[in-house]
Amino acid sequence: MTAERTRQLAWAYLSRVAEPPCPPLAELVAEVGPVEAAERVQRGAVSAELHGRIRARREINCAAEDLDTLQRRGGRLITPDDEEWPAWAFLSFGRKTPPVAEDRPPLVLWAVGPDRLTDVTERAVAIVGTRACTAYGEQVTAELVAGLVERDVTVVSGGAFGIDGAAHRVALACEGATAAVLAGGIDVPYPSAHSALLHRVATNGLLLTEYPPGQRPARYRFLTRNRLVAALSGATVVVEAGLRSGAANTAGWARALGRTVCAVPGPITSAASAGCHELLRREDTVLVTRAQEIVEVMGRIGELADELEHPATPLDGLTDVQRRVYEALPGRGARTTDEIAVAAGVPADQVFGPLAVMEINGLVEREDGRWRLPGRVRGGQVGTAGVGAHDGQRVGDQR
Amino acid sequence: MTAERTRQLAWAYLSRVAEPPCPPLAELVAEVGPVEAAERVQRGAVSAELHGRIRARREINCAAEDLDTLQRRGGRLITPDDEEWPAWAFLSFGRKTPPVAEDRPPLVLWAVGPDRLTDVTERAVAIVGTRACTAYGEQVTAELVAGLVERDVTVVSGGAFGIDGAAHRVALACEGATAAVLAGGIDVPYPSAHSALLHRVATNGLLLTEYPPGQRPARYRFLTRNRLVAALSGATVVVEAGLRSGAANTAGWARALGRTVCAVPGPITSAASAGCHELLRREDTVLVTRAQEIVEVMGRIGELADELEHPATPLDGLTDVQRRVYEALPGRGARTTDEIAVAAGVPADQVFGPLAVMEINGLVEREDGRWRLPGRVRGGQVGTAGVGAHDGQRVGDQR
Repeated sequence: MTAERTRQLAWAYLSRVAEPPCPPLAELVAEVGPVEAAERVQRGAVSAELHGRIRARREINCAAEDLDTLQRRGGRLITPDDEEWPAWAFLSFGRKTPPVAEDRPPLVLWAVGPDRLTDVTERAVAIVGTRACTAYGEQVTAELVAGLVERDVTVVSGGAFGIDGAAHRVALACEGATAAVLAGGIDVPYPSAHSALLHRVATNGLLLTEYPPGQRPARYRFLTRNRLVAALSGATVVVEAGLRSGAANTAGWARALGRTVCAVPGPITSAASAGCHELLRREDTVLVTRAQEIVEVMGRIGELADELEHPATPLDGLTDVQRRVYEALPGRGARTTDEIAVAAGVPADQVFGPLAVMEINGLVEREDGRWRLPGRVRGGQVGTAGVGAHDGQRVGDQR
Repeated sequence: MTAERTRQLAWAYLSRVAEPPCPPLAELVAEVGPVEAAERVQRGAVSAELHGRIRARREINCAAEDLDTLQRRGGRLITPDDEEWPAWAFLSFGRKTPPVAEDRPPLVLWAVGPDRLTDVTERAVAIVGTRACTAYGEQVTAELVAGLVERDVTVVSGGAFGIDGAAHRVALACEGATAAVLAGGIDVPYPSAHSALLHRVATNGLLLTEYPPGQRPARYRFLTRNRLVAALSGATVVVEAGLRSGAANTAGWARALGRTVCAVPGPITSAASAGCHELLRREDTVLVTRAQEIVEVMGRIGELADELEHPATPLDGLTDVQRRVYEALPGRGARTTDEIAVAAGVPADQVFGPLAVMEINGLVEREDGRWRLPGRVRGGQVGTAGVGAHDGQRVGDQR
């Protein structure tokens, strides 16, 4: 058996042995690698905490069969070993306070489809919403998705009835890229009435799941799955949602992961828009009515794809306007809001908000009513304290 | 002639002699009083700047006839001499940068109707929108206005076709208080098809204008009038508006005057909601779907009515949540965001936004990631630098 095959089998085994995400298992793998981790798990030579998580399944080793199942469907196991692993998309995990187990990247992803995962995450938007959508919601989904496809954006969703299904269907109809993240095994199409739709996604786009073959979807798995829909996308757009909906859960993950949450308004007389309006009453949700507005929100997220040269930085999450405002700050000294407005070409009354948000993120500083870059980023001072990725990005900028 | 009558005639004369608002005239009146100002204007003994503004009309003195016209309609001239003059509602004028002539309070208000103006402004919401409203817009207006009337809120609008008219009509139907601000003389009902409606407003609520009798509405007068609709209301709600609409102009005034702008979302497929969505894409517009949400936005604006004891302060513009967050700041020392969330009873993730906004307004300060009151407001230090209205409000607070 090749070393590569051994690693694949280890990953596949680990994927099934504990319900994902499993922080102690992830830590063990990070420490000793997948092969050694699998071996220790099989022996039961692990911490008490991890033992509790793997006890029930550690003697089940159907890794070879699982990989066969995957291969028969033309699929592949995407692991942190692969170039296709979207490491940067998972960088924002682990920030929730208090910590929650779900706030973890997947261990591996079972995938079927021609699209490369790193290509997907380079420029993707999650389009999500209620299963009980209205004709208005379907129409809006169709218009937004068609516009996103036109702009080469991959449409990510959860494959469910309603908005999710409409999003995949329209993306396919427009010959655009689309990815569905499942809450069960790659061979368990759910809902079953979407078998044909999901098959078309697997044939033309990408079907993804962190669950091994045969695993059935369950309520908690949908919620866990939602974090991946959010993480793989530059922005999450809620088209229609009731007051308590899975879409709001996905939006919550997007926010926790530093992605922008967008929502589409609708008639206030429609219960299917009530969840969107609730989201929009928060200051951090962006109201969108056209695909162009969604693309603006994504900003230059595509530039992140090349994560080796441009590590993820706080700048990556900036909206287009925020970035323009940021770039209007002088290398040395400070500027007034009005000066920044002129330099950025942004209306004066739209400069304060972005500056305040960036101040919270530590990207700008205020001094006597003027704004400047933080000390560690300003020109000429970068050799000393400034060696973070943030500084590199700013200094690499040749303006 | 009584001194009171002389002053009334002077105010009435001054109201017609220059197109309002007229900053140099307002300054002259502030300096020498209305009687002396009227006398100087009649003689032409004024600054060159003011002379240019009054030249055309200074020889027209129909003040007595104008007051007769008003009296025949059962009306009254409300001036800064009157207890009914809503001085605090006009305090926020004069802040636009660069200065614009319209950014001024009215000199006087010609009024017809049983409601006292100070009662109106104590608890009023402007409901405005496009003349070309849809059935959806009418339905939403009816629901919001009925809810506002139930909560004893006066509904202010401009008497126009569409949303404005619906707002007045529903308020009257619900036996609620309503005020219409006209862009022409009190005896020039406009649009004429709304004569009966405006007559009912004058009979049951309050009809207001800064223009003397006989003055015809004109495009610039509608825009000038809009500032009064905004100023007299604690919040302005745009129900439906096209992309370039007078309602957006009123919203702009509301914002400039420190009032909260609310907008009702609608189908993104409806052109009559496009202006609302444009407003809602700004961070400082509040999405509202129910009357209760509008009342929350108004916060405790009612407490301001007693302007002698509680002068208008930056705190007045705070939303309910902002105020709760503000009040959770300690008299001395600083608190973390989490501590403030607990003290304010506001979810932790909803504390940052209000704090950031209040920081911009100078109401709170940040120090090492903690928040505190500005130096001049903190307990024990108020005797020294702190003698502004702001400090008084904080100190007068008995918590």
